[in-house]
Amino acid sequence: MANSKFEYVRHFELTNTTHLLPNTYIIIRIDGRSFHRFSTLQSFTKPNDARALSLMNAAAVSVFHDLGGEVVSIAYGVSDEFSFVLRKECNLFDRREAKLVSTVVSIFTAYYISLWPKYFPSQELTRPLPTFDGRAVCYPTIENVRDYLSWRQADCHINNLYNTSFWMLILKGGMTPQEAEKELMGTLAKDKNEILWSRFGINYNNEEEMFRKGSVVYRNYGAVPDSSTEDKPNEEEEATPEKKEATAETTPVPPAEAQKGKSRSQQKREAKKLAKAEVVIEHVDIIKDAFWEKRPWILHWTLGRQNEYAGTEQ
Amino acid sequence: MANSKFEYVRHFELTNTTHLLPNTYIIIRIDGRSFHRFSTLQSFTKPNDARALSLMNAAAVSVFHDLGGEVVSIAYGVSDEFSFVLRKECNLFDRREAKLVSTVVSIFTAYYISLWPKYFPSQELTRPLPTFDGRAVCYPTIENVRDYLSWRQADCHINNLYNTSFWMLILKGGMTPQEAEKELMGTLAKDKNEILWSRFGINYNNEEEMFRKGSVVYRNYGAVPDSSTEDKPNEEEEATPEKKEATAETTPVPPAEAQKGKSRSQQKREAKKLAKAEVVIEHVDIIKDAFWEKRPWILHWTLGRQNEYAGTEQ
Amino acid sequence: MANSKFEYVRHFELTNTTHLLPNTYIIIRIDGRSFHRFSTLQSFTKPNDARALSLMNAAAVSVFHDLGGEVVSIAYGVSDEFSFVLRKECNLFDRREAKLVSTVVSIFTAYYISLWPKYFPSQELTRPLPTFDGRAVCYPTIENVRDYLSWRQADCHINNLYNTSFWMLILKGGMTPQEAEKELMGTLAKDKNEILWSRFGINYNNEEEMFRKGSVVYRNYGAVPDSSTEDKPNEEEEATPEKKEATAETTPVPPAEAQKGKSRSQQKREAKKLAKAEVVIEHVDIIKDAFWEKRPWILHWTLGRQNEYAGTEQ
Amino acid sequence: MANSKFEYVRHFELTNTTHLLPNTYIIIRIDGRSFHRFSTLQSFTKPNDARALSLMNAAAVSVFHDLGGEVVSIAYGVSDEFSFVLRKECNLFDRREAKLVSTVVSIFTAYYISLWPKYFPSQELTRPLPTFDGRAVCYPTIENVRDYLSWRQADCHINNLYNTSFWMLILKGGMTPQEAEKELMGTLAKDKNEILWSRFGINYNNEEEMFRKGSVVYRNYGAVPDSSTEDKPNEEEEATPEKKEATAETTPVPPAEAQKGKSRSQQKREAKKLAKAEVVIEHVDIIKDAFWEKRPWILHWTLGRQNEYAGTEQ
Repeated sequence: MANSKFEYVRHFELTNTTHLLPNTYIIIRIDGRSFHRFSTLQSFTKPNDARALSLMNAAAVSVFHDLGGEVVSIAYGVSDEFSFVLRKECNLFDRREAKLVSTVVSIFTAYYISLWPKYFPSQELTRPLPTFDGRAVCYPTIENVRDYLSWRQADCHINNLYNTSFWMLILKGGMTPQEAEKELMGTLAKDKNEILWSRFGINYNNEEEMFRKGSVVYRNYGAVPDSSTEDKPNEEEEATPEKKEATAETTPVPPAEAQKGKSRSQQKREAKKLAKAEVVIEHVDIIKDAFWEKRPWILHWTLGRQNEYAGTEQ
Repeated sequence: MANSKFEYVRHFELTNTTHLLPNTYIIIRIDGRSFHRFSTLQSFTKPNDARALSLMNAAAVSVFHDLGGEVVSIAYGVSDEFSFVLRKECNLFDRREAKLVSTVVSIFTAYYISLWPKYFPSQELTRPLPTFDGRAVCYPTIENVRDYLSWRQADCHINNLYNTSFWMLILKGGMTPQEAEKELMGTLAKDKNEILWSRFGINYNNEEEMFRKGSVVYRNYGAVPDSSTEDKPNEEEEATPEKKEATAETTPVPPAEAQKGKSRSQQKREAKKLAKAEVVIEHVDIIKDAFWEKRPWILHWTLGRQNEYAGTEQ
Repeated sequence: MANSKFEYVRHFELTNTTHLLPNTYIIIRIDGRSFHRFSTLQSFTKPNDARALSLMNAAAVSVFHDLGGEVVSIAYGVSDEFSFVLRKECNLFDRREAKLVSTVVSIFTAYYISLWPKYFPSQELTRPLPTFDGRAVCYPTIENVRDYLSWRQADCHINNLYNTSFWMLILKGGMTPQEAEKELMGTLAKDKNEILWSRFGINYNNEEEMFRKGSVVYRNYGAVPDSSTEDKPNEEEEATPEKKEATAETTPVPPAEAQKGKSRSQQKREAKKLAKAEVVIEHVDIIKDAFWEKRPWILHWTLGRQNEYAGTEQ
Repeated sequence: MANSKFEYVRHFELTNTTHLLPNTYIIIRIDGRSFHRFSTLQSFTKPNDARALSLMNAAAVSVFHDLGGEVVSIAYGVSDEFSFVLRKECNLFDRREAKLVSTVVSIFTAYYISLWPKYFPSQELTRPLPTFDGRAVCYPTIENVRDYLSWRQADCHINNLYNTSFWMLILKGGMTPQEAEKELMGTLAKDKNEILWSRFGINYNNEEEMFRKGSVVYRNYGAVPDSSTEDKPNEEEEATPEKKEATAETTPVPPAEAQKGKSRSQQKREAKKLAKAEVVIEHVDIIKDAFWEKRPWILHWTLGRQNEYAGTEQ
């Protein structure tokens, strides 16, 4: 059977392939589809369900593992969304947009479905199953990436303060949703804090960090013993070589500068070490500088796999 | 907390949103990631594993159900790939490429994982889980869509004939994979048919249709009783009004022409009926005209949800 | 000098090349930049300057000639804009968007500047020079293309009726622009016709066709003697073989159908003949069917240069 | 006349508008169409025609003037091509690709045609007129932009050394083009230098800088008196405040850092001054650091028109 006379259709495909701009950070954000309905159906605790958030985090960790150590440098999750920041050197799938987005969404979905029984042992998934959509956006600079993540974390704060107040007014204040909405209309952050404290004795700052700050997922390079120093102690409190380096970053010298003097082989060693580093989940502030200054490997280091796009910056 | 100073990052997102050309057929093709390794790991039967193909088909049917009755008009699956043809009137997600592709991939993945135990009751999924990637391509005409599907089905035939011969040479002929590959090098279709017949007594044309033709999934409009004729008999053999219409399509009058005279309300009625029609899986030839002439609703009819892109053609 | 270490930058280029969807009509529309200011500077006659429009038309004809006979099938101009419809088989520059748009804009600009002295012999161009921008949009069907052109011609009518009324109120009615604008606010077409007639004795329908209908540019295939019939008469009023064919198109048979029976060599002959046909400028209605039924070669015929995208439709 | 029923076609347009990624350098490169033929037709001097190159440069300067002072930061021309680097803050036309590319091409073409008689007073342009095509590519970092420009200048060197040798072998050596080509096959730079010197007494390094280095076009901010120092001397040899600043850039402090301390109003003052600066044409090395260290305003300064994309980097 001659297949050749149909093969012209491949031209349509070749001409529809978007490659994302090289040497930029790719952020892939996934969102739950119709999760409002899904969370009601599965009786998620309001305003936050720790099991559901932990399942999201576990699926995100699986994305790190499935794609390998050097692809995703950090991820941030809140509610039913998760953003994955890919290293700017990333050349996976030749940076084809559709492949990158669909792969991340597929991995996330597969683990979400597969891990469900672990986090909701007594509840079965029913049709329609939970699913996610995704999109990719490029950001050219570290500043843009940090502003993106700050935008999501600030959003988390704003939404969670609102939701906490809203549900307290309903669950403990006996209001209807409409009454609670009306009560909160036009209130500022301090008003909501006051409502929580004066009416329900809740100090918002004591609420769970996971609810207030969202979830930050990354490879904890700083906690991995350097191969040349594997006999050195590795406790959190100890100043390992990495910690010293990290501390040095807090000086006015820009973090990237600290790396400028590094040799290519040193960068490769760092890349290998990073790939072995444990993926950790934290609920911490990523808007201020401190988080980044202590973990310069996440955004400031150029690590291994220098590809053809790396330019003169060596 | 002021979120506004970070919100500028949304501009990067807005300027990176691809909308697929209106009034064209969107074909979303998904492919299994590393399924060669996965099929070995899960000991899929060679050259074809009926359970694995049936699981693919079940996941594809779920995409029809999840997206609703008017979105996907036909899907075609072979091996670890599936192509979904969206109606040219489709305006789902405002035709945003990333949302369409990631959603189809996510639904497919969710059901593949979720239905696995039904098709492989004695085998557990292990990490890394099976996942899929996807892409979307637009095709402007029915001819282009049919040629695309013919390309995939011709490919199915070519690959399956090769694989059947290859595995027979190994499993029954006692060859190593290298010997089998060498044996088949440069052979034509008739040579492979001859090898199968003379050495193993296999008439290729008697092999399972699912293996030879792949899987065609669509809504069987023709088998649904018309709401205005629900008292009419509906057996396959009976000539229902729809069947008559379908039969009429085999005359030289182009199928689309048959619809030209239809009123808007008739189109709406047809759309409603289609949304209720059962999703069927068949293993039939879709290269020749017969399949399409008998099922004009799949590609030739413009059905309901006439959106703003529909133009003057009413 | 080693150039190789810089050449990686070409990757950025390769990944930023948009190819327009095959088998669709490409419409490239160019617009004058700041022509409001330019027309004041050069004292264009209001509301319409026949010299300026004729210069636009001459530049458009040059685009036909420069790109060759089979690329542009029709162009439509009004005011300081011109739309060029490229045949759906067009594979010029491998359909790369930037090359197509910039080339058309460059040709148009070059001839506009170069031909200026012919149309404005007593006025010199001064800085800033008149320039144009452009964009390309794909349309999948003949209906979409006709609706696009109808949209532009309807716009021409609406704007010209307004402008004619507006300038009469100023030039002959002695109003200020503000007064004229106020006078016309909320008026319908019939009101404007009435104003023109009752106050200024102007029957709008007697205004110049070029002003009321814009300019239609195309190759007049129908007026070219067929190579096999070169001894036949060719007057407009005569029924040449082409005219007969064109007339046949007015029957209910869709124009495309008429071509279905044509052999490949016949199509090639037609393509050659078309490339030789004179480019004509007319000021006629292109919203109704008559124009198209009489000139089926413009949109309904698939002509020569059948490339690999042409599909099975032969 | 109701235009509304056609207006749906605008959707096709809206969904086909590419916006270039914010906060990246946009490089628009234009190329002469069929200039090999054109240069023969117009008897351009071989291997380089100073008049033709000067005309290219004059057209490029016009692009700076037409687009205004803050849009293009530097341009580089060689042979029949010119690359325009737009500031990364540039928000012209909302960064729509087609508008940016077509506008630059149109301006360049308009001035090329219009200025032709000045550079070729005794030769008339004939049909087909010289035209240009263009494309836009984004580059995220200064390093990428410098590598792009280095790539073009290295290319200029390689091509010009070849062409100079090739044409000497023909014009003075009496070879045919085929013989010259064969003679040069496989030669290295030093071989070509040797051929030029030993056979024709030509020291390649004494060839015109415009031929060997191409043309660099930029605004000479450094030569403009600061508004706050307009009574200060401004001779090239004098150390104006700007020159001092520029000189300071040669220290290990990265140029961008020098700006970090600048207030917003200082940046605005600098932007204003830049817009007034003369556009100069030079034929100098832009591969080494010296050019850039002395002119930090070209790539290293963020100037005025801080738009919403500028991020936190202030």
